[in-house]
Amino acid sequence: MDMHELTRSLVAKNDSKIVMLVADGLGGLPMKPGGKTELEAANTPNLDRIAAAGVQGASIPVKPGIAPGSGPGHLGLFGYDPLQYQIGRGALEATGIGFPLQSGDVAIRCNFCTLAADGTISDRRAGRISSEQSAPIAISLRQIRIPGIEVFVEPVKEHRFVVVFRGPGLGGDVNDTDPQAVGVPPLDPVARNEASQKTAEVATEFLRQAREILRDQPQANFHTMRGFAAKPDMPSYEEVYGLRAAAIAVYPMYKGLAQLVGMKIVGQPSTLEEQIDLLGEVWDDYDFFFIHFKYTDSTGEDGNFDEKVKRTEEIDAVLPRIEKLSPDVLIVTGDHSTPSYLKAHSWHPVPTLLASDCCRPDPHTAFNESTCITGGLGQFEAKYLMLLALSNAGRMGKFGA
Amino acid sequence: MDMHELTRSLVAKNDSKIVMLVADGLGGLPMKPGGKTELEAANTPNLDRIAAAGVQGASIPVKPGIAPGSGPGHLGLFGYDPLQYQIGRGALEATGIGFPLQSGDVAIRCNFCTLAADGTISDRRAGRISSEQSAPIAISLRQIRIPGIEVFVEPVKEHRFVVVFRGPGLGGDVNDTDPQAVGVPPLDPVARNEASQKTAEVATEFLRQAREILRDQPQANFHTMRGFAAKPDMPSYEEVYGLRAAAIAVYPMYKGLAQLVGMKIVGQPSTLEEQIDLLGEVWDDYDFFFIHFKYTDSTGEDGNFDEKVKRTEEIDAVLPRIEKLSPDVLIVTGDHSTPSYLKAHSWHPVPTLLASDCCRPDPHTAFNESTCITGGLGQFEAKYLMLLALSNAGRMGKFGA
Repeated sequence: MDMHELTRSLVAKNDSKIVMLVADGLGGLPMKPGGKTELEAANTPNLDRIAAAGVQGASIPVKPGIAPGSGPGHLGLFGYDPLQYQIGRGALEATGIGFPLQSGDVAIRCNFCTLAADGTISDRRAGRISSEQSAPIAISLRQIRIPGIEVFVEPVKEHRFVVVFRGPGLGGDVNDTDPQAVGVPPLDPVARNEASQKTAEVATEFLRQAREILRDQPQANFHTMRGFAAKPDMPSYEEVYGLRAAAIAVYPMYKGLAQLVGMKIVGQPSTLEEQIDLLGEVWDDYDFFFIHFKYTDSTGEDGNFDEKVKRTEEIDAVLPRIEKLSPDVLIVTGDHSTPSYLKAHSWHPVPTLLASDCCRPDPHTAFNESTCITGGLGQFEAKYLMLLALSNAGRMGKFGA
Repeated sequence: MDMHELTRSLVAKNDSKIVMLVADGLGGLPMKPGGKTELEAANTPNLDRIAAAGVQGASIPVKPGIAPGSGPGHLGLFGYDPLQYQIGRGALEATGIGFPLQSGDVAIRCNFCTLAADGTISDRRAGRISSEQSAPIAISLRQIRIPGIEVFVEPVKEHRFVVVFRGPGLGGDVNDTDPQAVGVPPLDPVARNEASQKTAEVATEFLRQAREILRDQPQANFHTMRGFAAKPDMPSYEEVYGLRAAAIAVYPMYKGLAQLVGMKIVGQPSTLEEQIDLLGEVWDDYDFFFIHFKYTDSTGEDGNFDEKVKRTEEIDAVLPRIEKLSPDVLIVTGDHSTPSYLKAHSWHPVPTLLASDCCRPDPHTAFNESTCITGGLGQFEAKYLMLLALSNAGRMGKFGA
């Protein structure tokens, strides 16, 4: 059974407020046997106090042993089975720069390349052209016009940019034009099914015009197209949960992921303090608040244990400001673990804390990797966290009589 | 894979006895931060003693965050995936009054209503007619005769009664005749598929005769039909588990649910002591005994913490009588939690205790919401409890060579 179908049939509305604070990459490892994890080493009096009154558990992002990227990691937290809802590469690239994909859009990852005089590819990444050079070239492609289709071109970084086609009847199943080799010409975009035929035709026309526009560029005189992907068809927070949801994030990727599930992007904060300011400002306008904090992940990816400890303490320090707003349900979690020891996303369950008046507190008075595994929420798949949030907020009726 | 298919292929018979004592709504919450739950507040020397020798865990009735009704709650405990086996409204209503539904039956919830002279509904509940008045009127409908169909009419309460059609070729997918409005005539029963065409015809004929019979009633001069539902097609305890199963329950709903999975209803007890008397009397005739105790739920629903504590102690007090019969496997659990604090069924995992000579005891010497989450059974979906029961009873062979 589709859990969203069940959820839809059970949700009820009320005036409750739910805050989900996602410390990206929360959860780590000791740097040496017998050592502490980053979260254990951090001084977190507020998390520990909330743990004493709340309930904790260990969230498994996808399945045991699976380390997720940001996409599946967040979809799980948002209650969307990350194995069921997969975001195609082009759509993820567009999401990553915060492009607001609409239903029916097809997004494509593009690479500038260098063509030799004979039309074969001599450099698949246009000499790894700098972002400063490539961005205006990408923007020059915005002059491309295709009848009946709205075309968006967005620079990403170095040789990479994103193209989005918007219009009726566009499928996402088109083969890459990158031949994955030099000395051969780019491939034509070929549809893998009838529903994507029009997309292939639009892409062909786009490439024809791009070839003209780019003809005189010394390095980036053409481009390839990869990872064609329609916007994944995801029901919205409003539709499934009956929640008006706000995303308060600094980085485009997380705004993009939140937009995929219909959250509204609030403000343009650049610090956690500003995010909490915004939370207070829009408190009356929404039911659910997703607050994203990046630096517990990025410091972990850098392998910088001490810095990750500090960033964890930064999260702890803002909690009283959130609590002052009296959310009915407060959740602190991560989309996956990013142990400094591994310098990468990992599969380890993520410490997850939930506080509400009816959460059934467990006996723990601290919050870390060791306590969470014996917490009252047990080990659970992240995709169930939203059901727990809704229940604790009094927003779920019972199943069956 | 269908777990029942696996179970069927592994079950073995022996002389073991399994007792499952279901304290409905077992599991609660503290009434205030830092307080005890009902089960923690109760004096339960027998549960604690059994916990010391046994193993415990936290049973998730359906999925994390889902609060079940009695139907899905019990189906889970009985080993039937509550998301796979859903009981339609009519079938649940019939089950709730203990009507022994047979395979192929279609059950319908009926409401007496009042028709105005022009044939439109003036009161959808016949003035909320009393049970005393409505029961004989419902029984008067038993004179209805439909060729080839056995018809049952059972009073429920006030304006409500149940009709069951029994005969070949009856599907359960027929639309409600209640227009959900007054000032309009009742709808005709319309089949939603070919397989339910005959049911719609039978219902039409039933309504035609009912209109004649009820014509002169001042209030209940007609009735609507809602929630048409075939008996859910559930394999029996005997067939899946190889168990001769007895249900020893006081209330019709739980007898009805037990009958749906093929348990035999034993006696007509009205107290827990009488239930245990009966258990002893039929001990040699069955392999599995489901004993249902209602009052841990009803006191929780009333928000009566102290009374729920007392009722929990009542459960504790009868345990020595059950132990005297030397069951090979003794399970104490609930179909869901009913915290007095919430006055409602909840999603919280249910403390579950299992004792057998091979249960692998965990270190706990008490049994409550805090201990169960770190018990040897961990947190598990209720639908797996029967497999644990069978294994602990030596009734499951190994899977694969």
